[in-house]
Amino acid sequence: MLETFPNPRPERDYEIQIRCPEFTSVCPKTGQPDFGEIQIVYTPDTACIELKSLKYYLQSFRNQGIFYEAVTNRILDDLVAVIEPVRLEIEASFTPRGGISTKVKADFVKKSG
Amino acid sequence: MLETFPNPRPERDYEIQIRCPEFTSVCPKTGQPDFGEIQIVYTPDTACIELKSLKYYLQSFRNQGIFYEAVTNRILDDLVAVIEPVRLEIEASFTPRGGISTKVKADFVKKSG
Amino acid sequence: MLETFPNPRPERDYEIQIRCPEFTSVCPKTGQPDFGEIQIVYTPDTACIELKSLKYYLQSFRNQGIFYEAVTNRILDDLVAVIEPVRLEIEASFTPRGGISTKVKADFVKKSG
Amino acid sequence: MLETFPNPRPERDYEIQIRCPEFTSVCPKTGQPDFGEIQIVYTPDTACIELKSLKYYLQSFRNQGIFYEAVTNRILDDLVAVIEPVRLEIEASFTPRGGISTKVKADFVKKSG
Amino acid sequence: MLETFPNPRPERDYEIQIRCPEFTSVCPKTGQPDFGEIQIVYTPDTACIELKSLKYYLQSFRNQGIFYEAVTNRILDDLVAVIEPVRLEIEASFTPRGGISTKVKADFVKKSG
Amino acid sequence: MLETFPNPRPERDYEIQIRCPEFTSVCPKTGQPDFGEIQIVYTPDTACIELKSLKYYLQSFRNQGIFYEAVTNRILDDLVAVIEPVRLEIEASFTPRGGISTKVKADFVKKSG
Amino acid sequence: MLETFPNPRPERDYEIQIRCPEFTSVCPKTGQPDFGEIQIVYTPDTACIELKSLKYYLQSFRNQGIFYEAVTNRILDDLVAVIEPVRLEIEASFTPRGGISTKVKADFVKKSG
Amino acid sequence: MLETFPNPRPERDYEIQIRCPEFTSVCPKTGQPDFGEIQIVYTPDTACIELKSLKYYLQSFRNQGIFYEAVTNRILDDLVAVIEPVRLEIEASFTPRGGISTKVKADFVKKSG
Amino acid sequence: MLETFPNPRPERDYEIQIRCPEFTSVCPKTGQPDFGEIQIVYTPDTACIELKSLKYYLQSFRNQGIFYEAVTNRILDDLVAVIEPVRLEIEASFTPRGGISTKVKADFVKKSG
Amino acid sequence: MLETFPNPRPERDYEIQIRCPEFTSVCPKTGQPDFGEIQIVYTPDTACIELKSLKYYLQSFRNQGIFYEAVTNRILDDLVAVIEPVRLEIEASFTPRGGISTKVKADFVKKSG
Repeated sequence: MLETFPNPRPERDYEIQIRCPEFTSVCPKTGQPDFGEIQIVYTPDTACIELKSLKYYLQSFRNQGIFYEAVTNRILDDLVAVIEPVRLEIEASFTPRGGISTKVKADFVKKSG
Repeated sequence: MLETFPNPRPERDYEIQIRCPEFTSVCPKTGQPDFGEIQIVYTPDTACIELKSLKYYLQSFRNQGIFYEAVTNRILDDLVAVIEPVRLEIEASFTPRGGISTKVKADFVKKSG
Repeated sequence: MLETFPNPRPERDYEIQIRCPEFTSVCPKTGQPDFGEIQIVYTPDTACIELKSLKYYLQSFRNQGIFYEAVTNRILDDLVAVIEPVRLEIEASFTPRGGISTKVKADFVKKSG
Repeated sequence: MLETFPNPRPERDYEIQIRCPEFTSVCPKTGQPDFGEIQIVYTPDTACIELKSLKYYLQSFRNQGIFYEAVTNRILDDLVAVIEPVRLEIEASFTPRGGISTKVKADFVKKSG
Repeated sequence: MLETFPNPRPERDYEIQIRCPEFTSVCPKTGQPDFGEIQIVYTPDTACIELKSLKYYLQSFRNQGIFYEAVTNRILDDLVAVIEPVRLEIEASFTPRGGISTKVKADFVKKSG
Repeated sequence: MLETFPNPRPERDYEIQIRCPEFTSVCPKTGQPDFGEIQIVYTPDTACIELKSLKYYLQSFRNQGIFYEAVTNRILDDLVAVIEPVRLEIEASFTPRGGISTKVKADFVKKSG
Repeated sequence: MLETFPNPRPERDYEIQIRCPEFTSVCPKTGQPDFGEIQIVYTPDTACIELKSLKYYLQSFRNQGIFYEAVTNRILDDLVAVIEPVRLEIEASFTPRGGISTKVKADFVKKSG
Repeated sequence: MLETFPNPRPERDYEIQIRCPEFTSVCPKTGQPDFGEIQIVYTPDTACIELKSLKYYLQSFRNQGIFYEAVTNRILDDLVAVIEPVRLEIEASFTPRGGISTKVKADFVKKSG
Repeated sequence: MLETFPNPRPERDYEIQIRCPEFTSVCPKTGQPDFGEIQIVYTPDTACIELKSLKYYLQSFRNQGIFYEAVTNRILDDLVAVIEPVRLEIEASFTPRGGISTKVKADFVKKSG
Repeated sequence: MLETFPNPRPERDYEIQIRCPEFTSVCPKTGQPDFGEIQIVYTPDTACIELKSLKYYLQSFRNQGIFYEAVTNRILDDLVAVIEPVRLEIEASFTPRGGISTKVKADFVKKSG
């Protein structure tokens, strides 16, 4: 589902930051909706993430039951599989439940060859 | 009292941040309530903190007499004992008393084997 | 429990605002603690609220089960009974539960004679 | 679906404000999700809105196609029908689409009899 | 160019607020681009402004030379002509030039019949 | 101690606002220092407050024991006595004590003759 | 020195707000520079203020000794004389001196004929 | 089009930061305008960027179709070609589209000789 | 005057931050009061600072003539002498005088043995 | 013109930060006034900057024509010449011109002997 386009400047290491404050999924335990913001920061190698397909990809979690820790790691894995970046960092911030807010951060760094 | 669940991604080092702005305990000297915010940042090893049990655990201090420095170190010890994380940092920020605000920060890093 | 002191300037209508951001009570349905901020604005007649006794009065709700609407109206009634002000307004703002925040506002105006 | 409970203080006109920042529905034209915040301010007559049922009621729009203006007026009508308040005001603020943010405000005032 | 859709609730007076922070036109004197934010607040009668057509309408000023006062009054006139609202208010805030920021506010109220 | 200078424009009613965030006095009950901000808004008649003398006047409370309500009314009386303004409003905001912040507002309006 | 241009829409009462945060003059008593922000809000009659000439006009105070109250009233008089507006309001906010900040507000309303 | 002036202090390494919040270009895919802020931080070698020419240079993108990643890298290249700085960093922050905001960061460091 | 209590957790290096926004002393040159905020961050060794005694200690500067640089270094010396911390940092921020604000930062690090 | 006083604590390396938000000079090209904020951070050696003389020194630029880059480097040079600090950093932030804001940062570090 995630589409890419060729990095217009592959010979330079630079950074792309994407902020998606309209993320929602469902808590698998309570069936209640979760709301959060996904931030993605990456250095592309040969491919960049196409933003419209990213929007649809993130929307695919809308009615899916998945925990905070799992969804953050899954998005990281899916993005890395598709664009094989030099490095990629994801931060998912969820709104408070029971007076407690949660943020999950994970990253990927390409092994140097 | 603190419960855990298995880390869904133990092979990757990632970070979980938890913010609990509704903490309250009692000052052992004056008997007056203290109010504060507890922030926990940790990298799980095999176990993660279950959030509902964390909420009940923090509520257990509600009517307990304990000083700022002691409660911060105690929460750190209790969490480390239960989830044995790769690393864990706690920051407790208390509201002003006598015109003075206090924050206590402590952390744990697993000894590399 | 609420104490008063004589209004030092009864011949002038003026306003006293009191902000108590450290209010906590217990939800009678779930047994879970509620957290909020109480704001009181009043014009004294012959008596003013003594602040230390107000602090103890508000602390008396700490382990009491009471709903948002009831506690706000109760504090209004208790304050009015004790100081018989020219007018008094109370605003109670509670932290989010299930993604929903609630604020209750009530006021009293002395009937002109 | 919306439940009520008896106003604990029907003899006094007071105000209840409810903020629901986690509202989402679907645009009937594009099929894309909309995100917004619903604010409700009302003076109860004999009944108050039960907050848990309000949460479920607002969640019922999650996968429903409905325009901004329609959803705001619908929520107003549904709440008024169930609690018959003295007055009720609703404000729905939606996140930007095409660089444009929209807010819809509507209110109801009981005809004095 | 501006399109409308039927007011879904013509029997009720309610308010629609639209914020367009991405407005740009050209200063007719210097030929330099101007940047600003357009805010529109209106009570619809039988017709509402279709947002996509509003976006295109506002974009039509992109390369047009027009002064602050003129553009604000023109947008007001054009919107009023198309939707014939009960009332409509426009506020245009422009970024600083020579250390001076300017805001223009104008409104229309339908004459009661 | 308070000095004045002639209103440069007595034929026009206009407003002067003065903000003094560096106010401190002593609590007569505890002997502890209080800290606050004094805001004064007035419409001069024939005389304006000279700012340097106002600074010294406010400093005269530095080591004086006086309650919030009394000091606010006293400053109002002293200023009114010296400049006989058309109207004058004072707002004194004190820093939190025991988790409670207090603000006192009082005003004077010249009786029209 | 102040220039005007014809009001492009004299048949409608509308409002123009101008914010000039870069005002500076000299204190006639101490010879020290004063710094402030001038805000002007007016409803034009037949003429509007030309902004470039306003900038030069305000710069003419740069090395002039003049008190807060006097400069505010002078700018009001000069603007009114040149554009003869329906109404005009000026607010001058000066940076703190000796821990005290001052704001002066004055306005003009055309006498209805 | 970009002009330069000689660095007034070439013997010292220092930093110049430039913030241009009024950037706009056109999306080559949709034909819709994009809006953003360009921030440039550089250490000059022998030449500095002349600001008026930078303004005109950035305006040249106004009606040009170009993607976020491409425009950021192009501005970096053009600036480096003209002033040959010791180092230069560019950050371009674009307003949300489809609920997603994007920021692109790229930099240049002169190879030490 | 400064009192201490035993560090409840001497075997762990952790940090205590204390913010005192209600500091005031007197300028020895002008005799005018100075106002500021003192922030202290330290890692205790065997002793912690008792907060009530710290409050009284800071109040002892209330009517003392002492310069910014001197008072900051003196507080650092006094605290270090009494608690012999692992490290201690002090930051004193004073309110503007003559349009200029000043902050003084100093720290102490125990020599490793 | 710049005066100094002996560092009260020369045996300790500590930091003094000075913020002067009321800086103004003249653009040599356009003759128009520039406005900005000067921040100075330094570690004194044997001498500290006397603040009143610094105020007069910065005022000496009021009617002087000088570019951003030049004035920042000049202030750095003048301060270093007079107090010979261990290190000194200056940051000058100027208000927007033509929609572009500029900040210049330069520093000095004493060569270790």
